[in-house]
Amino acid sequence: MRGVVMHGPGDVRVEDRADPTILDPTDAIIRLAATCICGSDLWPYRGAEPVDHQVMGHEYLGVVTEVGSEVRNVETGQFVVGSFWTSDNTCEICRSGYQAYCVHRTLMGTIGTQSELARVPLADGTLVATPGQPDDDLVPSLMAASDVLGTGWFAAVAAEAGPGKTVAVVGDGAVGLMAVLAARQLGAERIIAFSRHADRQALAREYGATDIVEERADEGVARVKELTGGLGAHSTIEAVGTQQAMMQAIGSTRPGGHVGFVGVSHGVSIPGGALFMAGVHLHGGPAPVRRFLPDLVRLIWDREIDPGKVFDLTLPLEQAAEGYRAMDERAAIKVLLTL
Amino acid sequence: MRGVVMHGPGDVRVEDRADPTILDPTDAIIRLAATCICGSDLWPYRGAEPVDHQVMGHEYLGVVTEVGSEVRNVETGQFVVGSFWTSDNTCEICRSGYQAYCVHRTLMGTIGTQSELARVPLADGTLVATPGQPDDDLVPSLMAASDVLGTGWFAAVAAEAGPGKTVAVVGDGAVGLMAVLAARQLGAERIIAFSRHADRQALAREYGATDIVEERADEGVARVKELTGGLGAHSTIEAVGTQQAMMQAIGSTRPGGHVGFVGVSHGVSIPGGALFMAGVHLHGGPAPVRRFLPDLVRLIWDREIDPGKVFDLTLPLEQAAEGYRAMDERAAIKVLLTL
Repeated sequence: MRGVVMHGPGDVRVEDRADPTILDPTDAIIRLAATCICGSDLWPYRGAEPVDHQVMGHEYLGVVTEVGSEVRNVETGQFVVGSFWTSDNTCEICRSGYQAYCVHRTLMGTIGTQSELARVPLADGTLVATPGQPDDDLVPSLMAASDVLGTGWFAAVAAEAGPGKTVAVVGDGAVGLMAVLAARQLGAERIIAFSRHADRQALAREYGATDIVEERADEGVARVKELTGGLGAHSTIEAVGTQQAMMQAIGSTRPGGHVGFVGVSHGVSIPGGALFMAGVHLHGGPAPVRRFLPDLVRLIWDREIDPGKVFDLTLPLEQAAEGYRAMDERAAIKVLLTL
Repeated sequence: MRGVVMHGPGDVRVEDRADPTILDPTDAIIRLAATCICGSDLWPYRGAEPVDHQVMGHEYLGVVTEVGSEVRNVETGQFVVGSFWTSDNTCEICRSGYQAYCVHRTLMGTIGTQSELARVPLADGTLVATPGQPDDDLVPSLMAASDVLGTGWFAAVAAEAGPGKTVAVVGDGAVGLMAVLAARQLGAERIIAFSRHADRQALAREYGATDIVEERADEGVARVKELTGGLGAHSTIEAVGTQQAMMQAIGSTRPGGHVGFVGVSHGVSIPGGALFMAGVHLHGGPAPVRRFLPDLVRLIWDREIDPGKVFDLTLPLEQAAEGYRAMDERAAIKVLLTL
């Protein structure tokens, strides 16, 4: 099969890779209907994480072509969506809603789903089947559910977005935009999106943002305070992963409010004294997408939400390198790769 | 009146100070029934915070001797307990339960309650009257409610201690011991107290600890994991304020679990990557004691809890310096000063 390999920073190639096979009786093999590039794939692309001939991709959906002997919940021919951490969905941690920390988890990024086929471990607890074969126009939205929508949704839940709340969103990438959508779905009254890019501002407004703040850091915090009677937002989402974004999120939140952070942390160090004086709740990490996936698939299937708009560039898998370049240059929010 | 002044690190004196007077119409003056020394008073005592002729003390209870013209909820002659942050108890932040961040707050430590008399700003929203004049043996417990019990209680609530939960407590000082008591009252199934001191271990067990762990740092974390099927505690309380204590608390907590931190942060820096991977909830800061104070006063009045045992040394106010020395040397857990 064909699949993406990152030879080193900035060096993305599509190559022949061995077809996956069932290794454990709980595995499934899927033929991908599409795949995509994640904002987190840019960290190694930019040299901020080590990379050496790494298979890439952790978002996936497609048709099951083979299942191991112990798989019970999914079957050959079904269309499925899964998350970037596999999960048995039965351990104590999974049952508490934290499937990204399943005691038997595997990171799909180590398997690499920017490819024609993929092996999915723990298929029963990882994959969610759609009600049938989706119409083509639903594929981008279902693809978003695999990571960016699920991650943005978790961030909004972690920030306790809900009715009567003012929610601030730090980060106008795909996850930040999905968090805006999630906050709106969860009933937030007011959604403040930090963004300096006209196209992203427009999409944020389409997904439910009521206010746009272009300022960053202390100036951005001051602007949110102005908009909230001096108190700060009830709920803030951090969807970047940098020191500035984290401190901007904490600073934008009122005492007793909630910060949900999902940006993959790079070089972040939170001063204990500042956190102590802020009095916010802080919760985040890799999103337990599997917790939300059945509901997200239903919302998409019923066309109640349209997260697929976050893909503003579609390329064939063979042109993956161009997709990475577009995202790196912020020419694209998120790139869908077709097969 | 007589009152404590810290001239510099290690230099505590009891001196004549001006009697307080009503400054604002929302003030009350109280004659203290007792006062005490806080673990946080040791930071300047040890030179870890700047101090120069500072009036000391922020815990207080006693009889109201005078009220300002706008005070409605308390009256002369009532016995009252208050918290270390004053609060109007009517602003949006107070109504959300975060009275320690009241938009009109004053820190009682700047007024100094290790003294015979004290002015209490925002008396209506700060003071809680007891049902009558307390028996002498209730005074230490009511004194504890002013800070250490309220702070330990907040930590246990922030850590979401409750039925079916395993709770770990980092710190065997007064606040840590009060957190053990609170976790038990909140219904925790299992309470693991970190402590190396036999007397504190004994009091922790009396207050409800089911397990004692003597190891610290990574070894302490490993021991908690052993005791919890490899997963970690559901809820962990950090009641110290150092880097080691904070990381020990985060490490002891399972993914999706809750860390409540109330140790006044000194030199703590939380690595974003470690927090991201831990997947815990983190919440803390100065406790909004006023939120819990009416319930705590009732529990003490009805003799359902006996937090006053945390005072293991009682001295007259005039011997405050000896009290500081005893706490600094860990010869005493907490010192009550009588008047």
